Amino acid sequence: MYFDILTIFPDLFPGPLAESITGRALKEELIDINPVDIRDFTQDKHGNVDDYPYGGGAGMVMKPEPIYRAHRACAALRGELPETVMLTPQGETFDQDMALELSQLEGLVLICGHYEGIDERVRELVVDREISLGDYVLTGGELPAMIVIDAIARMIPGVVGDERSPRQDSFYQDRLDYPQYTRPREFKDLRVPEVLLSGHHSRIERWRKKKALKRTLARRPDLLEDADLIEEEQELLEEIKEENAASMKEEGGGVGDNIDR
Amino acid sequence: MYFDILTIFPDLFPGPLAESITGRALKEELIDINPVDIRDFTQDKHGNVDDYPYGGGAGMVMKPEPIYRAHRACAALRGELPETVMLTPQGETFDQDMALELSQLEGLVLICGHYEGIDERVRELVVDREISLGDYVLTGGELPAMIVIDAIARMIPGVVGDERSPRQDSFYQDRLDYPQYTRPREFKDLRVPEVLLSGHHSRIERWRKKKALKRTLARRPDLLEDADLIEEEQELLEEIKEENAASMKEEGGGVGDNIDR
Repeated sequence: MYFDILTIFPDLFPGPLAESITGRALKEELIDINPVDIRDFTQDKHGNVDDYPYGGGAGMVMKPEPIYRAHRACAALRGELPETVMLTPQGETFDQDMALELSQLEGLVLICGHYEGIDERVRELVVDREISLGDYVLTGGELPAMIVIDAIARMIPGVVGDERSPRQDSFYQDRLDYPQYTRPREFKDLRVPEVLLSGHHSRIERWRKKKALKRTLARRPDLLEDADLIEEEQELLEEIKEENAASMKEEGGGVGDNIDR
Repeated sequence: MYFDILTIFPDLFPGPLAESITGRALKEELIDINPVDIRDFTQDKHGNVDDYPYGGGAGMVMKPEPIYRAHRACAALRGELPETVMLTPQGETFDQDMALELSQLEGLVLICGHYEGIDERVRELVVDREISLGDYVLTGGELPAMIVIDAIARMIPGVVGDERSPRQDSFYQDRLDYPQYTRPREFKDLRVPEVLLSGHHSRIERWRKKKALKRTLARRPDLLEDADLIEEEQELLEEIKEENAASMKEEGGGVGDNIDR
């Protein structure tokens, strides 16, 4: 899958994406990260990519033509009008379902804004989809573009090795992960829960499912609202709710998600 | 403000943060980005930072001791037990209020996970706060750490220049930004809205407020639920709702947030 990134900071790519799982995906040509310098598509002699906002106000606005022309160049290169995403706090909030959906595409153009914003006509002329990482303001769209590429790349078959299916991760099944432990068995007086040392696979499986559900219920009950729970999970959820009710009676306190041992 | 980053990829920092606004903040020593290599704190001869999970299962888990020891080293360096954040999909969702709150601190330790996760005891022993960027799975905590640093740094006085207060940005006032335009006046048959060329400042101000509210209502009505609206904004919101109702009657369609000209 190709990612054409329209940016005024092309040297930032692949940057952090050259490491770890995305780095291997790059080497194996499962993904192609192609930064396109918007400055190369300016037409004035100063190579300006921004200008003052009409109507006044602080800051500068990114001009429409260079981005439009860079986008046309990508379309020519790819032989299609690629799905085009603008990274902006005004967009729909990115999530795992969107990552999966976008990973089905042959490629994606990502437009990274800076300054005060991008001329509105870019949105009207070339943008298919505006995506926001979350409700916070960042300096530019480059870091969000990297995040989006990382999340999408992980959903492309072959990118995450066989040893670990991304389908087991948080959110894929609408719940948070269970707690993980490795050696040593005891560290700073904290011991690995006995069940994990038992070698009893079905008990371990059940403990993990329960912990994942308990944590999700405590921290992100919204995720469970639309979750497809199998019968065992529904039973576990009932158990957890009963335990929580009992411990609230006992302690007169709220529901935590501490790990019982 | 200092950011001590516990990572197995210290070379990724400052990386993208060396550019633009965060780059200037680094040069002016308003922020200090200090990657700490977790591998430097391993004790076994192979320098292993991960090990098999107790209870079986795919993937590897990051060991507790090296992270614990790296964290102690940061505390010794800083002369305090620093506020410690773990980047994980299990955490509270990061937002602008959190960025503002964290920007009041003297410094922050950010723990970046990889592999299958981090031994649960790290969370119990050193982590004050778990933060998630949003509901998607990433390869590691490094890109999220960069995002969090960018958002926090922008809230530190002096980091974003006088020409633009971060208090004007999206989310700071619980609404999305209004559309921006710059030259040329006409591009691909799309003209800059007349009002912005009028030079009539109070009309421009009112148009912008209305557009921001209209867009927020169309895309993110949840933001307006808790918003403090001044009287003028309440009036504009009523106007928008009336216009939307009228256009739904006329068109029999839904409510868009197209820019009227």
